[in-house]
Amino acid sequence: MVSESGHDNPIDHPDIRAVHDSMLDGLGQLADYFGFSKVLGQLYGTLMLSATPLSLDDMVERLDISKASVSMNMRSLEHMGMVRQVWVRGGGGRRKYYEAETDYWKIISSLLNGREMRDVERAIHVMTENSKKLKVAMPEMADENQEVARVYMQRIAQMQTLFQFAQLMISSILAQAETVDFNDISSIEIHSEQD
Amino acid sequence: MVSESGHDNPIDHPDIRAVHDSMLDGLGQLADYFGFSKVLGQLYGTLMLSATPLSLDDMVERLDISKASVSMNMRSLEHMGMVRQVWVRGGGGRRKYYEAETDYWKIISSLLNGREMRDVERAIHVMTENSKKLKVAMPEMADENQEVARVYMQRIAQMQTLFQFAQLMISSILAQAETVDFNDISSIEIHSEQD
Repeated sequence: MVSESGHDNPIDHPDIRAVHDSMLDGLGQLADYFGFSKVLGQLYGTLMLSATPLSLDDMVERLDISKASVSMNMRSLEHMGMVRQVWVRGGGGRRKYYEAETDYWKIISSLLNGREMRDVERAIHVMTENSKKLKVAMPEMADENQEVARVYMQRIAQMQTLFQFAQLMISSILAQAETVDFNDISSIEIHSEQD
Repeated sequence: MVSESGHDNPIDHPDIRAVHDSMLDGLGQLADYFGFSKVLGQLYGTLMLSATPLSLDDMVERLDISKASVSMNMRSLEHMGMVRQVWVRGGGGRRKYYEAETDYWKIISSLLNGREMRDVERAIHVMTENSKKLKVAMPEMADENQEVARVYMQRIAQMQTLFQFAQLMISSILAQAETVDFNDISSIEIHSEQD
């Protein structure tokens, strides 16, 4: 239950302020690194460090950025499963607040289960189809073209092992996410068929 | 030894052309996905599918894009270790050509060894320092601020496990890259301390 926004998180101590700014700065850089807006990282940081849920207006005030920018970036964060809505009663009605998801396995699992995994699978499928197309057409080709087709098939096969590695990595993480405690991971082993 | 550029890669067969365009299209999308220019992916694709090294002019001609854009994106690809220069004699002098790196373990290793690993290490260091700062300052804080500091320390610790997982993932890949054959990887196992 939140009565009034922000009051319970005053940040009036210099060390708390310094840590707050350092974390928001780092998360802004991280967001930028992954091709998002810095604001997205700063918004996640603001919510992550807040003891209570915050409204869009709280975030506008704290970060001193436009409401349009806050709304847009909050939608991205919600879409990635990094923040969630909570409805809080107060002042004669219900108001929408947000809190940060801090279960990182959950975030990773939902990200990898969706877009990432589909993209990798589609890439592998496209490469398989392309190799098949060349293999079928090759016997009818002129010698010069057969040579080109051979180079293509070899290079596509090399790239395909990269995507198969990515696929195995993602599916291993997903399969083990539920049984392994994220805080206790001690080693990651990559096994080959010869092992 | 390349006598004249491009002549040995005519792409005059419809299926070769279709596969060529499909691969360049996919690599363009992949580059875009990672926040680079599509041209970067298309340039890598052009080199990867070429049986012989290509010059900057060859790439300008094949992709129908400006030399400035080709130069800029080729510098990025070189920096990432995805293409390399080769010098080829011909026409009374030496000319600079490029070829694609197709050893993907090598590319991954050099990327993870550099920027990625340093960024993860720096993030962990910043979080450790921030937690330490709060721990030292806490005994002197007012009760209200102590409560805020406790929330900060807990949330920072949660995020730190995420970065430690990333660090373990990167170092496991680097440590095993030299002993495991990329083409034969059959499983990836994540172990916890309880195992």
